[in-house]
Amino acid sequence: MPFSLPEIQRPDRSILSPLQRRLDSLTKPPGSLGRLEELARNVGLMQGATDLTLQKRAIFTFAADHGVSHAGVSAYPREVTAQMVLNFIAGGAAINVLCRHYGIENVVVDVGVDYDFPELPGLISKKIARGTNNFHEMPAMTEKQATDSLQIGIDLARGYDIVGTGDMGIGNTTSSAALLAVFAELPVEEVVGRGTGVDDDRLRHKTNVIQGALIRHKPDPNNALDVLAKVGGFEIGAIAGLILGASSRRIPVVVDGFISGAAAMIATRLEPACRDYLFFSHVSRERGHKRMLEYFDARPIVDLDMCLGEGTGAAIAMDVITAATRIYNEMATFESASISRS
Amino acid sequence: MPFSLPEIQRPDRSILSPLQRRLDSLTKPPGSLGRLEELARNVGLMQGATDLTLQKRAIFTFAADHGVSHAGVSAYPREVTAQMVLNFIAGGAAINVLCRHYGIENVVVDVGVDYDFPELPGLISKKIARGTNNFHEMPAMTEKQATDSLQIGIDLARGYDIVGTGDMGIGNTTSSAALLAVFAELPVEEVVGRGTGVDDDRLRHKTNVIQGALIRHKPDPNNALDVLAKVGGFEIGAIAGLILGASSRRIPVVVDGFISGAAAMIATRLEPACRDYLFFSHVSRERGHKRMLEYFDARPIVDLDMCLGEGTGAAIAMDVITAATRIYNEMATFESASISRS
Repeated sequence: MPFSLPEIQRPDRSILSPLQRRLDSLTKPPGSLGRLEELARNVGLMQGATDLTLQKRAIFTFAADHGVSHAGVSAYPREVTAQMVLNFIAGGAAINVLCRHYGIENVVVDVGVDYDFPELPGLISKKIARGTNNFHEMPAMTEKQATDSLQIGIDLARGYDIVGTGDMGIGNTTSSAALLAVFAELPVEEVVGRGTGVDDDRLRHKTNVIQGALIRHKPDPNNALDVLAKVGGFEIGAIAGLILGASSRRIPVVVDGFISGAAAMIATRLEPACRDYLFFSHVSRERGHKRMLEYFDARPIVDLDMCLGEGTGAAIAMDVITAATRIYNEMATFESASISRS
Repeated sequence: MPFSLPEIQRPDRSILSPLQRRLDSLTKPPGSLGRLEELARNVGLMQGATDLTLQKRAIFTFAADHGVSHAGVSAYPREVTAQMVLNFIAGGAAINVLCRHYGIENVVVDVGVDYDFPELPGLISKKIARGTNNFHEMPAMTEKQATDSLQIGIDLARGYDIVGTGDMGIGNTTSSAALLAVFAELPVEEVVGRGTGVDDDRLRHKTNVIQGALIRHKPDPNNALDVLAKVGGFEIGAIAGLILGASSRRIPVVVDGFISGAAAMIATRLEPACRDYLFFSHVSRERGHKRMLEYFDARPIVDLDMCLGEGTGAAIAMDVITAATRIYNEMATFESASISRS
C-alpha cells in the first residue's frame, strides 16, 4: 500500500460562541480562569463539541536509536536507549511516575531501538531497523523507512480522547536541532543545545556534525519527507505520524518538548491543518526550544525548566488541560447556584 | 489567653545534600527535571526529612466580608460572598472542581461573612463579626479581632502534610492592594487592580478610597498587626495565621494569588522565618501581584493568567509539588535499573 497522508479538517470556529457562553455562565468573573478557559475552549474546538470528553488519555513514548550517536554527540552511551525502554516497561522512569500520578496510560513503542527485546507485556514492537544510519556519513534513512515511521504513528492514533507525544533515543537532540535549523532556516549554532548534558567541546563537535550533514545531504525544507529521511529519526517520524493521525480523527495532541517539537515541524509541513490540533505543553531548557515555539507562535502551558523528554512535559500539561475541561463541565452556573451578577 | 505567635524554626539546610544525592541517583540526566527537582528538594527541606510525604493535602478557603465593599469598590454586590460560600458547600465552585480533580480536601471556613448560615456540613463556623468595618471611614477591625483572625488560622493548621491558602470576600482586592502598598512602600496607583472586573471609573475610585484610608489611619509598616487591623480583612488574617501555624509545624504552605500574598506579607512581617515554608503557586493577572512576588523574591510555579482566588492557583501548584515528590520517591535509580551513566 503506497503511503498517503490522512485528511485533516480545520475545526469549525462557529462552535466558539456556545463554548464561550457556557464559560461565561459559570460562577466566576468572566475570564478569571485565564488560560484554563482558553484550554477548555480549544478542546471543544478540536473535538467539535460543546460537551468535552477527556476520559481516555495516553502519552505515547516512541523509542529509537540514532546512527549519529556513533559520532560522539551525546553525553550518554547508545545502549541507554534500550536500557531506558526496559525501565519504562518496569515502571521506573519519570514518565511512568507522572502517568501513574495522573491516571494517564503510557504507551511505549519500539520503532527502532538497537536491541532485540524479548516479547514484553507493555512494549509495542514496530521496529523499522536497529537504529538509523549515521547522518554524519549518509542519509539517516530511506524514504520508505521515513514513510513507515509516519505510518506507525498514524495507525496508533486512535481510541483516545487526547494523546501526548514522547520520545527516547540517545542522539535525538542532534537530529532535532538539524530539523529545526532546516525548517526555521536558522544557523545551526543558534539552535543546537546540550541535550542530556554535553560539555563545550562536545557541543562544538555536535554543531560541526550537524553543519556537515546539512551541507552534504542538502535536505529540502519544502519537502518534509526528504528532511525526515536525511537527518530525522524513526521516533521523530512516528511522533509526526501520531500528530497527523490524531488530527485527522479530531483528537487533541499535547506536544512534549524539543524532540516532539521537531516532529511537529515535520507534521505541520506535511499537512498544515494539523497545527489546529496541537497544544504545546512546556518550554524545555534545551537551547533551541524557544525558537521552535516561536516558529509555531505557541505559548506553552507550563515552564518548569525541564529537558528530559519521554513525554514528561506533555503529561503535566495534559492534566492541566483535563482540569480545564472539568472546570468547563462541572462548575455551577450563576443561575443554578443563585449567584448575583455584576 | 493572650495572643502569642507560634515559634518557627528555620529548616536545617544540611539535609539538602542527601536530598540532592537521591535526585542525582534517579534515571534521568542530572537536573533534567528542573523545577520538579527543586520542589521536591524544598519539600524535604521544609519537612526536615529525606522521605517525603504529601498524603494529606488540603486547601483552606477562608471567607469574610469587607466593610469597604459598601464604598463601591467592587464589580459584584456584597451578598456574593455568602452566595459563593453556599456554592463551595454545594461543590459548584472552581475550587471544588479542582480539589475533586486532584483528590485534595477543601476546607471552607466562615471567619466573617455578613450572613447567618444555618449549620452546614462542610462549613467551619469561626465568624468574628459580620464583616469588617468600612476602612474608608474607620479602621477595619480592633486589634483583638486581628489577633482572633490570626488565631483561627494558627489553630486550623494541623493534621495535614501540606496546606494551600484560599480566599473569598467581595472587596478583598481593595484590602490586599492597601496591604501591598504599605508593606512594599509602593504608590497605591501602581498596585491597585481591577479585582473581579471594575471599569476605569471604579478603579480610580478604588484607588482614592485606599489612598484616603492610608492617609487617615496611618498604618505602621513596622507593626503588621496594626496594618492588618486598619486595612486588612478577617480572611486575610486567618490566612496569615494558617501560614504561621503551618510553618511552626513544618507543614509546607502553598500560597494562592493576590489576597493570599497580602496575607503572606503579614505573616512574614510577624515572623520572617515562615518565608522558608512557602511555595508561591502562580502569578495572578491582578495588577499588583507581580510586585508582590518581587517583594518575596519568589518565582511562581505556574502562570495561567488566572485571577479568581478561592485557592484555585494553589490547588494546581500543590498537585505539581505532589507530582515532584512522587518523582523523588518512586523513580528507579541508575543502579536499580542497570542504566549506564554518562
